Amino acid sequence: MAIISGFPEFLPEGRVVEARAIDILRGVFELHGFANIQTRCLEPLDELSRKGEITKEVYVVRRLHAEANTGEDLGLHFDLTIPFARYVLDHAPGLSFPFRRYQIQPAWRGERPQEGRYREFWQADIDIVGQSELGFHHDAEVVLVMLEACHKLHEELGIPPVLMRVNNRKLIQGFYTGLGVSDTMAAIQAVDKLDKIGVDAVAEILASTQNLSRPQIDQIMAFAQIQTSSADFADQVRALGVSTLEMETGIGELEQLFGAVAERFPSNVVVDAKIARGLDYYTGSVFELELVGQESLGTVCAGGRYDSLASDGKWTYPGVGISFGLSRVFAPLITKGHLVASRLVPSVVLVAVDSEELRSQANLVAAALRSRGIACEVSPTSQKYGKQIRFADRRGIPYVWFGANHGQVKDIRSGIQVDAHTDTWSPEPSTLTPTILQR
Amino acid sequence: MAIISGFPEFLPEGRVVEARAIDILRGVFELHGFANIQTRCLEPLDELSRKGEITKEVYVVRRLHAEANTGEDLGLHFDLTIPFARYVLDHAPGLSFPFRRYQIQPAWRGERPQEGRYREFWQADIDIVGQSELGFHHDAEVVLVMLEACHKLHEELGIPPVLMRVNNRKLIQGFYTGLGVSDTMAAIQAVDKLDKIGVDAVAEILASTQNLSRPQIDQIMAFAQIQTSSADFADQVRALGVSTLEMETGIGELEQLFGAVAERFPSNVVVDAKIARGLDYYTGSVFELELVGQESLGTVCAGGRYDSLASDGKWTYPGVGISFGLSRVFAPLITKGHLVASRLVPSVVLVAVDSEELRSQANLVAAALRSRGIACEVSPTSQKYGKQIRFADRRGIPYVWFGANHGQVKDIRSGIQVDAHTDTWSPEPSTLTPTILQR
Repeated sequence: MAIISGFPEFLPEGRVVEARAIDILRGVFELHGFANIQTRCLEPLDELSRKGEITKEVYVVRRLHAEANTGEDLGLHFDLTIPFARYVLDHAPGLSFPFRRYQIQPAWRGERPQEGRYREFWQADIDIVGQSELGFHHDAEVVLVMLEACHKLHEELGIPPVLMRVNNRKLIQGFYTGLGVSDTMAAIQAVDKLDKIGVDAVAEILASTQNLSRPQIDQIMAFAQIQTSSADFADQVRALGVSTLEMETGIGELEQLFGAVAERFPSNVVVDAKIARGLDYYTGSVFELELVGQESLGTVCAGGRYDSLASDGKWTYPGVGISFGLSRVFAPLITKGHLVASRLVPSVVLVAVDSEELRSQANLVAAALRSRGIACEVSPTSQKYGKQIRFADRRGIPYVWFGANHGQVKDIRSGIQVDAHTDTWSPEPSTLTPTILQR
Repeated sequence: MAIISGFPEFLPEGRVVEARAIDILRGVFELHGFANIQTRCLEPLDELSRKGEITKEVYVVRRLHAEANTGEDLGLHFDLTIPFARYVLDHAPGLSFPFRRYQIQPAWRGERPQEGRYREFWQADIDIVGQSELGFHHDAEVVLVMLEACHKLHEELGIPPVLMRVNNRKLIQGFYTGLGVSDTMAAIQAVDKLDKIGVDAVAEILASTQNLSRPQIDQIMAFAQIQTSSADFADQVRALGVSTLEMETGIGELEQLFGAVAERFPSNVVVDAKIARGLDYYTGSVFELELVGQESLGTVCAGGRYDSLASDGKWTYPGVGISFGLSRVFAPLITKGHLVASRLVPSVVLVAVDSEELRSQANLVAAALRSRGIACEVSPTSQKYGKQIRFADRRGIPYVWFGANHGQVKDIRSGIQVDAHTDTWSPEPSTLTPTILQR
């Protein structure tokens, strides 16, 4: 067999769950005016290595009989942000700014597979990108849209409630600069490891590589531990005794963002000063979201503001975006069977076949039901009715139709069988499409 | 810039068309009880080269820092049939047979890009697979489902009418065997080139590589030219004076298939004896579909019956399927602007912003409209109303809302402005989602 670890695949009853989640996200994003795009899955390798930190995990793609190093090397994209930045530059003349887009596609990383981490995984991204300028209110907007989407996934598919942690790069950098840290980016990336490697190890890195004093490191740790669900974070930061203009700008932005988000989702947002996002293109707001009670899954959603992820000779394109890790959230729920469709097939009705001579009659019944939006399939065999009913039962198909257009239909859950006509009979509305069961 | 030829990307107003086409296909397939699956995009290289003829065009995938030739080489799938066969073997214990599935995903081939041929392209496949047996009536079923889907795409998106050419491998092989051709597969692949290279070149190949006599070649050419939209094809074949049991079996199957399809779509199907499909896994019915009036695009849809595409130690899995070339049909229509969405964004309403202080009021208006399923966005700026209206106009957004929940709404197409409340006002139903314009 050819199962490859890190490449999740679902049975049809699991795929229904994934497709439903995508439909929910798509619905929320479109209600907020985000237009859909898709980018090609392959990018030039130098484009992929232009930003970020994970180039070593990129999958390189080459034609089987191509000569090596033709200078045309391609790679599979490892997120949807970098392809989107490239798309904006390629298609800018055809776009209207600010450009609001959503994108739901797979991405690939050759990392060691573990729960919630896959080599092929789906993401759902929203971004708003401006041409040379973009209002700060869009930072709160993308967070609110994603929280609304998560809320809907919670209500309809039972995913856990979520907690959005927000912070601001200007606040962090301003604070670090005020403390006398010279390489703020290196410090940010060290502190970003706090949850993974702990206080002592981060302190050790800061002391050895950044040449910081014990009091400086203590201040950084005190700062990184600020976490609050009220607007008092500004007082807590200022109480540490550092003050710079950049820090105050960051505080102002974060107050505005936190205020707008907390007004709508007061129990789903906290300011968390240790959140920084490792990637170097963020320049203002940063966000991370986790599932409450399933923190071990890690960050399932993340994003932030970037002042110039993309720029051509004439314009820079500032943006703000957030990415939802579809596979990270849903693949474990689906593979463990916690979320499953109520049946294996879309069919509401199995049309029984009396004999092979009467198959075309059964086809006419099916066509009549389909013309009224009722999904159905015709029995593959003309075995005894008992076997045809078992065929439906095994797939969770709720109804079996017998005879011609004016025939009889049996609800095999209750066993009740009634006269019915294909022009007028309708299934129970709740059975029209498979429902998602939570177990 | 990084545009790579052969990798089509659309502007948002084009992506709407592609997404609509996918929704139409998905709707038809589900009405017929086909369950959706997705397979991973990467397969082991030896799996990809197991069948078929195009291995030289495969894209090989390797981690950037992996050592070469680790024996774990992967490739991007170049169709959805081979991954599906592998999926059936991997997941057989969890599937119920006959298993009806549809699959809509991209595939990759490193071939020379030309119109309608891409290196990254989307396909929509349906297949029905049995465990050790599969009724022949499913052959007509998959053809009918695909013709119904094409008919719906014709009605809703204006693609040209279609012509399905059907044939049968047993008929061809039986005829060739009766003629004394020893390597029937080689002859099939030569005749398959008839449309591309012409009668003389094919005759030359048959004479030189198959060592066939002039009369034999003439018979093959006479056979390959049989093309009819009535059931008289059997007489035409038999009139050539060859008769074998296999040929008669093929004639019987083809009569049954053609009859079932022509009953429903009499003007969309012909028997065409030169259709064979190059791939060696087909064993019975074969189908090819072209767009009437756009024959230069070539085959946009193809498939057939395979008796054992997949087999494990215990079972073989016979199947029949057909694949629709989404990109081949839609990418030219979209990139040339023949099909385009009526607006650039999902938003029906732009909520105007009087001043930045009143942005939260505008947000409440938008939230109220969204709760009733009306897609909207809030103006990114609080410029003069004229500029905000132009913002909506440039995107094709039909309505602009002014003021609070009890405010006014302007239809910017007619210029008519009326009092409105977010709890009761509704846009013209035809504007609720973007429509597709045909030009």
